[in-house]
Amino acid sequence: MRQVGWIGLGAMGLPMVQALLDAGWTVTVYDVNPKAVEAAVAHGARPAADPAEAARGAEALGIMVQDFEQTEEVLFGRVAAAAMPDGSILALFNTIGPDNARRVATRVGERLKVLDAPVSGGVKRARGHLSIMVGGADETVAAARELLDILADEVEVVGPAVGDGQAMKTVNQLLAGVHIAAAAEALAFAARTGVDPRRAFAVISHSAGYSWMFGDRGPRMLDRDFEPPRSMLQIFVKDLGIVLDTARAAGIPLFLAPQAYQLFAAGKAQGFGRLDDSAMIAVYERLMSPGTDQ
Amino acid sequence: MRQVGWIGLGAMGLPMVQALLDAGWTVTVYDVNPKAVEAAVAHGARPAADPAEAARGAEALGIMVQDFEQTEEVLFGRVAAAAMPDGSILALFNTIGPDNARRVATRVGERLKVLDAPVSGGVKRARGHLSIMVGGADETVAAARELLDILADEVEVVGPAVGDGQAMKTVNQLLAGVHIAAAAEALAFAARTGVDPRRAFAVISHSAGYSWMFGDRGPRMLDRDFEPPRSMLQIFVKDLGIVLDTARAAGIPLFLAPQAYQLFAAGKAQGFGRLDDSAMIAVYERLMSPGTDQ
Repeated sequence: MRQVGWIGLGAMGLPMVQALLDAGWTVTVYDVNPKAVEAAVAHGARPAADPAEAARGAEALGIMVQDFEQTEEVLFGRVAAAAMPDGSILALFNTIGPDNARRVATRVGERLKVLDAPVSGGVKRARGHLSIMVGGADETVAAARELLDILADEVEVVGPAVGDGQAMKTVNQLLAGVHIAAAAEALAFAARTGVDPRRAFAVISHSAGYSWMFGDRGPRMLDRDFEPPRSMLQIFVKDLGIVLDTARAAGIPLFLAPQAYQLFAAGKAQGFGRLDDSAMIAVYERLMSPGTDQ
Repeated sequence: MRQVGWIGLGAMGLPMVQALLDAGWTVTVYDVNPKAVEAAVAHGARPAADPAEAARGAEALGIMVQDFEQTEEVLFGRVAAAAMPDGSILALFNTIGPDNARRVATRVGERLKVLDAPVSGGVKRARGHLSIMVGGADETVAAARELLDILADEVEVVGPAVGDGQAMKTVNQLLAGVHIAAAAEALAFAARTGVDPRRAFAVISHSAGYSWMFGDRGPRMLDRDFEPPRSMLQIFVKDLGIVLDTARAAGIPLFLAPQAYQLFAAGKAQGFGRLDDSAMIAVYERLMSPGTDQ
């Protein structure tokens, strides 16, 4: 496989395409934002005028648009799926939830090989060093192996069905979202109770309160380093929304994830959606500080 | 310093005393449970008939009873504080919260050197390999240095005032408690959405959803390994209670810690208080499973 199409050139999509170009592959790209297409072309990608053109003739089509609505739009509304060659691979790299991944698979039927492959690792690992949680038939995974190995350091094949990768990612995102909010809650609480937040960060980094998110987002929270966003706050409105949708559809009560969702939703409502998700600390500071109108 | 008293020989206190005995110190011990005293004596400690006897003549008195109520009872009700020599060190190793540590310091006044020294690390590190978060005057910390170095691999002096160590520990426990509940929520959610919880544990252990508590408690949650408890579930009812008390007293709203508190309180109400805190997974399973009366 050396000839692929790609739709979605955001903060993650562009470096993923770069990884494929680094490996010498031919990548035909589409994004609604012409500037993003230009950036990819500057790295050696070929521009497509619409989603269907990116899909035509490709051995695999990578999807990295923001959410399920955009996924449906490019695949079915703008007919990228119909333009794909018989038997080619449709790789869903974005986080859309297990039910939505199964909806896509049902809709394309047997004609295409659907690979459910949500990624983890953030922008700094996006150029070839991601973790990918894969759900898909053995034959599909085997056909996509070279593609996956270029994009990721760790490929975890979690199950044979489309949706299995998304289901695992959903569990991970439940924890990741709760941990970001908890890190902000703890650092804001520290500051308000007379504990130096930098000292708290140093001490807790080797204590029982540590989390990967605390270690990764903590410094940005302390430095108010929200731009450019490494991972936008509104992504967790989407991803925790998927957690809640999945739980509700299955009749599963949750207790921490819904509260974390509300905090991210508050951040988005306050205009922080396109900032780095470490701006959660600013949400807490607003919740804890006197307003100017008092 | 080689002659110390010790009150409180629970899962943490006993191995801490062993560490002092390992170093060749003389330790006079008291606990309400005679069996715990016998166990310490079998390791070479001297038994005291009451708290005051443990305190008499000691260069330092270590307190490791369960909570603030017991601390007040042994120090003031059963007069251990009055029995301590002038200028000796009163070391509060238990987690009682910053406000309560300050109450103890106010009550003993200038006659004793109060060291605020809550520990972290759990039973498996309790025999000389703890982390200790210390608040206290330079002179007090210097006088207690040898004692602290025997008990801990890491001594973090976080501030010069009694309460500073407890305040840092409180921030840590906010995160630790939320992370235990989040780990249980994620693993129970995984099982109910068709994701193998053992596979989820393996994948998330090197993903963005990782926390120290997920890594430490996760295997016990998967194995239903709740006895003997390494850290009792009811300890987090106390410790998250301290978080909430501290926040309420300072007028600070919190969003995840109160929900985590309710989950631990549910666990205690259901009779799991003296099990390992990884029994939080059983709380979630009850919350998510049909009852037998339906």
